[in-house]
Amino acid sequence: MAYSLGLDFGTNSVRALLVNLKTGEETAESIVPYPSGTDGIILDAKDPHLARQNPADYLICLEKVVKNVLRDAAKKEANFSPEIVVGIGVDTTGSTPLSVDAELIPLSFHPEFSGNIHAYAWLWKDHTSTEEAEEITHLARKIRPHYLQRIGGVYSSEWFFSKILHLSRVAPEVFQAASSFIELADYIPAVLAGRRTPKEAVRCICAAGHKALYSEDWGGLPDDEFLITLSPDFRGLRQKLYEKAYPAGKVAGFLSRQWAIKLGLAENTPISVGAFDAHMGAVGSGIKEEVLVKILGTSTCDMMIFPRNQELPAIPGLCGMVPDSIVPGYWGLEAGQSAVGDIFYWFVKTFMPEFPDRSYRYFEKEAEKLRPGESGLLALDWHNGNRTILVDQKLTGLIVGFTLKTKPYEVYRALIEATAFGARVIIERLEKYRIKVSEIITGGGIAEKSPFLMQLYADIIGRPFRIPASSQSCALGAAIFGALAADPKKTGETSLYQLQEKLCRFKPEIYQPRIENHQVYNRLYSLYRRLHDAFGTKAYNESLYSVMKELLDLKWSSSGQ
Amino acid sequence: MAYSLGLDFGTNSVRALLVNLKTGEETAESIVPYPSGTDGIILDAKDPHLARQNPADYLICLEKVVKNVLRDAAKKEANFSPEIVVGIGVDTTGSTPLSVDAELIPLSFHPEFSGNIHAYAWLWKDHTSTEEAEEITHLARKIRPHYLQRIGGVYSSEWFFSKILHLSRVAPEVFQAASSFIELADYIPAVLAGRRTPKEAVRCICAAGHKALYSEDWGGLPDDEFLITLSPDFRGLRQKLYEKAYPAGKVAGFLSRQWAIKLGLAENTPISVGAFDAHMGAVGSGIKEEVLVKILGTSTCDMMIFPRNQELPAIPGLCGMVPDSIVPGYWGLEAGQSAVGDIFYWFVKTFMPEFPDRSYRYFEKEAEKLRPGESGLLALDWHNGNRTILVDQKLTGLIVGFTLKTKPYEVYRALIEATAFGARVIIERLEKYRIKVSEIITGGGIAEKSPFLMQLYADIIGRPFRIPASSQSCALGAAIFGALAADPKKTGETSLYQLQEKLCRFKPEIYQPRIENHQVYNRLYSLYRRLHDAFGTKAYNESLYSVMKELLDLKWSSSGQ
Repeated sequence: MAYSLGLDFGTNSVRALLVNLKTGEETAESIVPYPSGTDGIILDAKDPHLARQNPADYLICLEKVVKNVLRDAAKKEANFSPEIVVGIGVDTTGSTPLSVDAELIPLSFHPEFSGNIHAYAWLWKDHTSTEEAEEITHLARKIRPHYLQRIGGVYSSEWFFSKILHLSRVAPEVFQAASSFIELADYIPAVLAGRRTPKEAVRCICAAGHKALYSEDWGGLPDDEFLITLSPDFRGLRQKLYEKAYPAGKVAGFLSRQWAIKLGLAENTPISVGAFDAHMGAVGSGIKEEVLVKILGTSTCDMMIFPRNQELPAIPGLCGMVPDSIVPGYWGLEAGQSAVGDIFYWFVKTFMPEFPDRSYRYFEKEAEKLRPGESGLLALDWHNGNRTILVDQKLTGLIVGFTLKTKPYEVYRALIEATAFGARVIIERLEKYRIKVSEIITGGGIAEKSPFLMQLYADIIGRPFRIPASSQSCALGAAIFGALAADPKKTGETSLYQLQEKLCRFKPEIYQPRIENHQVYNRLYSLYRRLHDAFGTKAYNESLYSVMKELLDLKWSSSGQ
Repeated sequence: MAYSLGLDFGTNSVRALLVNLKTGEETAESIVPYPSGTDGIILDAKDPHLARQNPADYLICLEKVVKNVLRDAAKKEANFSPEIVVGIGVDTTGSTPLSVDAELIPLSFHPEFSGNIHAYAWLWKDHTSTEEAEEITHLARKIRPHYLQRIGGVYSSEWFFSKILHLSRVAPEVFQAASSFIELADYIPAVLAGRRTPKEAVRCICAAGHKALYSEDWGGLPDDEFLITLSPDFRGLRQKLYEKAYPAGKVAGFLSRQWAIKLGLAENTPISVGAFDAHMGAVGSGIKEEVLVKILGTSTCDMMIFPRNQELPAIPGLCGMVPDSIVPGYWGLEAGQSAVGDIFYWFVKTFMPEFPDRSYRYFEKEAEKLRPGESGLLALDWHNGNRTILVDQKLTGLIVGFTLKTKPYEVYRALIEATAFGARVIIERLEKYRIKVSEIITGGGIAEKSPFLMQLYADIIGRPFRIPASSQSCALGAAIFGALAADPKKTGETSLYQLQEKLCRFKPEIYQPRIENHQVYNRLYSLYRRLHDAFGTKAYNESLYSVMKELLDLKWSSSGQ
């Protein structure tokens, strides 16, 4: 008997999952929402770009969620005991950096910074650092072009150094007081392991490589000259950070006595090096060669792996290509859409505020009755910018094709279609650079809840879609890495692939594209690409004159008029 | 003592207004909605382009509405008697043609065509004849280019021959059975005058010139060769129609005994030649040189007059330039926006269906708090196509600038702004061709109800706006023409201008543009023009890359971020 515990620190809550490594079953799970802010996020009414989290929430929820699963597991399996939890894996959102003191304590825990939102964790979707991202991109283009080669050519406002640079300007007192800055994905394992200084905290390759320009090719983090040219305040920053980053599955430390007591687990339980939620989610969803894993939530993260022993092309607009960041031995490729579920939620909440719950169902039911093209609407899914392939926050949503008869459920369907078109752009970009995509596994809440959306995606993208059976793919991935970090004698020396074969299960339905719909969607997609390129790229100069006309032709022909 | 009666056959109802020609006061008014269909319009669930009216409604409402005003006038003024109603004027929507038999009876009154919607009146906004409009434009370009010169270069699906041609194809039995086709604006005066054949009915220059390619320059209606080339079924059509058309103010006939009894008016009361609602509304609103009259309702009609003794330039995209069609002695210039109030109504009704009434007020209140540019949104007001200056039904509405925080009242304001930008395009087109616009008088329900909208229009267009005091400008214009048709001995031989001076009054408020807002709107307008030209014209090939970025810059700067 051996169990592994996966911990998933999401945007709004912490999830824990306990898996039985013998049977492959999920023994217990729990979800605990963050108590602070709005759904766990600290917002600023004056600045819609700001999104922070209270670091205290992480520790409060951590304790609750682990106790919950242990209690439930004990109830469920008579033989269960906390001693047979052989490993712990942790994933979190990211880039979500915290300012910490010399003892690895978040600055927000100090009385002088208490309630200072700049001393809080800067959540992945905080977009206050747009200008800083541009400065980093600009400088890298000028003096370190190779830094940009594996991140799609543009450094994002969501990433580590943009946030730290913005912090140094809006809250210099916090920046100066910080002994180090640490990703949440590194902070949680370090806390559990009882690390006492920032240097002792093991940093993960996933955050370092995807968000902090870390690569062994250039000796780790960006060099001093680059950082100091970026800002004189960055003198000494590199020394406050770290020299080396490690892949998940390696041991980040062993459970401290203090946390063992607090959680009710065995002292010295191995803790895996962390990673971002999406990456561990990809593993929990069964990622392998030629299989794209798409985590479909408020936004998406699209992940592929590609053997390290083959030459990886530079793919323009792809956000990240980092060795070992998803599965050891493979390049981890990461793409994503800046908003998907967030767009649907916004639409339903904003334009049908009285009945948010009823409306989802109502919209789906009505939207499902429409034929492809029948609404005459076409949308760009850029309400939160575009991550892949344009890497541009300064974009917005667009809807074209309104008539005086346009219905809300038609707009709703058009928004879903737009996100599918956005997904297709990513896949076509991958395949253009010889990364074959044979199948798509889609995790995340939306994939489970909406067969309508999944079928629409299959029709638009023209490939089969499968859905993991687990509703906690990220936590499951974390549990897999927890098992990898465990003593091999306790787990039977299984490989990551073997663990996936045992633990990753799928729902019976496979969504297959319907040819007739796919053909209509090919026409709509070509219109989407024209709008995409017209508003999203500098060089496009073809006429858009026929766009509305082609949409009306499609509308009239598909509604039989 | 002398009164004139104005009758206004609108899209949803008939309005009557009785004016005292001595005092200039409005003695009584009444509104009677059409009983058939949805708000008086017969729709087809399968074809959103179809809009018909039941001719019986016109006669039922005519009787009711006249009786109402006579009853009210008698109550209000002790000395009033129906004998001192010295003239009757009639305006209607148009082009709204009916199929009639040899006795001028609508075919729908015949049992074999009863309930046949093709034998009904084809309401001005029926858009089923798009293809036919294109055929007419195409043929005229090829063999009669001068036909297009005064109608903006494109024949519309809303106009007479498009509708008759479509009728001949979808309902050949109706087309063949018709002895003639008559505009509603000609039908009502003919009915009142007891005309017994289509040839006896006096046709108005307003409908003929603006909608049926009628001009004295080429001997009236389009010639036989043109019509027969258009369709072999049109052989003999010209002979079924009319030779000559007359301006409003001329006598179309005298009230028949039958209708005099029915209505309670004096037999032989003179009836003015008809005109379209907007044109008589322009007169009722006080149109004169350099003053644009804008009737702001479900759609708009923008009208100017220009002295016939000056050379009128050909203005591309302007829908109509017809001598004497608004004020005798002047060119009547007509432009328009295909949907304005319809867009606001659609939005509020569709996206806040539970509370349509509350929502208008709520939206206005919230929208008014926003600064120009603050929403980051920009819309194209083409939900029902674009009449001026693109003359293109095959266009649709567009909204760009959505974020995950976009609120309904922001969209609402953006839609109002879009219609103001559309209005500005028309004014700039007029001025480019030396038709000076010094002031704008805005009539119609929206102008009265929404000071917020009027101020926004003034800010965006950069000119002062005034509003007629009468809530029945069209019926007032009809009454003015009724007085012109009357026996001069009974009216004191007043001219149209003198009648306007006496009868047309204005609300005290004048909406003046606010310079600061106007400057921001100049920037937004230049973005609107880019979208307008990109989606609405063939030649445009400039990059739209900066559009979303400029909108975001404006948003961030105007919201102080």
